[in-house]
Amino acid sequence: MKRLEVIALEGIGEVAQGDSVGNLVCDACARLGLQLASADIVVVAHKIVSKSEGRIVDLDTVAPSARALHIASDLDKDPRLTELILRESRRVVRTGGKTIIVETHHGFICANAGVDLSNAGSGRAILLPENPDRSATKIRDEIEARTGAAPAVIVSDSFGRPWRLGTTDVALGVAGLNPLKDYRGDTDRYGYELRASMAAIADEIASAAELVMGKKDGIPVVLVRGYLIDSRKGSAQELLRPEAEDLFRKS
Amino acid sequence: MKRLEVIALEGIGEVAQGDSVGNLVCDACARLGLQLASADIVVVAHKIVSKSEGRIVDLDTVAPSARALHIASDLDKDPRLTELILRESRRVVRTGGKTIIVETHHGFICANAGVDLSNAGSGRAILLPENPDRSATKIRDEIEARTGAAPAVIVSDSFGRPWRLGTTDVALGVAGLNPLKDYRGDTDRYGYELRASMAAIADEIASAAELVMGKKDGIPVVLVRGYLIDSRKGSAQELLRPEAEDLFRKS
Repeated sequence: MKRLEVIALEGIGEVAQGDSVGNLVCDACARLGLQLASADIVVVAHKIVSKSEGRIVDLDTVAPSARALHIASDLDKDPRLTELILRESRRVVRTGGKTIIVETHHGFICANAGVDLSNAGSGRAILLPENPDRSATKIRDEIEARTGAAPAVIVSDSFGRPWRLGTTDVALGVAGLNPLKDYRGDTDRYGYELRASMAAIADEIASAAELVMGKKDGIPVVLVRGYLIDSRKGSAQELLRPEAEDLFRKS
Repeated sequence: MKRLEVIALEGIGEVAQGDSVGNLVCDACARLGLQLASADIVVVAHKIVSKSEGRIVDLDTVAPSARALHIASDLDKDPRLTELILRESRRVVRTGGKTIIVETHHGFICANAGVDLSNAGSGRAILLPENPDRSATKIRDEIEARTGAAPAVIVSDSFGRPWRLGTTDVALGVAGLNPLKDYRGDTDRYGYELRASMAAIADEIASAAELVMGKKDGIPVVLVRGYLIDSRKGSAQELLRPEAEDLFRKS
């Protein structure tokens, strides 16, 4: 029977700058009696990755630019937070309500450049990892060094969508995993060629993991077992739609 | 240990108009030795629902309007398919490349109004169910009548995203399930109030199910076990962002 398991790695506590996320994952598996395998997928919420990488900013240290002050006043947002969002962005895509939709330096189009005040501690903001693919690779290498197994790793975040309410989790970074499953050129069972079909399986795996993470349960790592990995070297950058094909980036 | 299982219900063959999808689900479970429970979630690909409801159109019977001919010529699309897309839509949101992004009569903003030529048989197109919440409720009622258990039901489809490549599956219809998990008003472990946090768990469950469905494996039904359901009466319409809050609908 084709079956996936999505397992919460409970018991990972606070993460501090310099901690090895790979080691924390291995410790959690050991406590739960789980042996990691190269066929596994480890999904890690970006927040603990950012914390381990020191991507936390004390808002009191941020001096807002004139542009940040202007946008913050328009949107009734904290000017220091607005400044951080602008620093993390290539461009502002749209503003409205209290929301700034930007394109981050990584190329992600999302609200607030992924800068988040929750689970950060009072007066502090968590930024996205600087290079989430590199973060995923580091975690994978740490796990392999300790266990000999090299599971695929996904670094995830919760993104909103323009036309649907609620967030779904997506892959910011991947290691050891092709993030797309490409059906183009395949045929359905009637012989019809599937022309435009690619599934963003790294995003779907991140979403599956979110179902056991929750937002406040303190479960930042989830193990997904039973998915047949296409383990060619992949990058979450492959999930980004090129600007030339994008009908909604420009105002 | 918090753990989900995502189980492919293999062996469901062709579905014809008038078939009871609920009975097909029960038959598949019986063959696999699985006993359905009210705590389960059954995810059904909309294609078999549409087929059971007769939402299949022979393209040769479609006479394109002048507007369909015009758009089809601009986008190099089949005018009969274009006509079907327009008939299924409230409005065209954006066109470009070979893509028509519309708002369907249900309120879904998606490519081609969900009208699909794959897995339909030659020269035929599959439309979305007319009322996917109603379809989900019917399947749930059929399962309950036969087994006494009333699992939650999600009717799913694969949608593209404006800024990310690849589709992820979403919920078109739900029964027996609150499609959103609302964290607003809750606090994180630092006491910070989660202000804008809702997770679209019905979409995440649909995405998890897609991982074992594939596009051409003929696995249109997936069982998700272990998710703690908020079973208040829900509708997939709750997943639609109201137009007043939408920054990207208008050109």
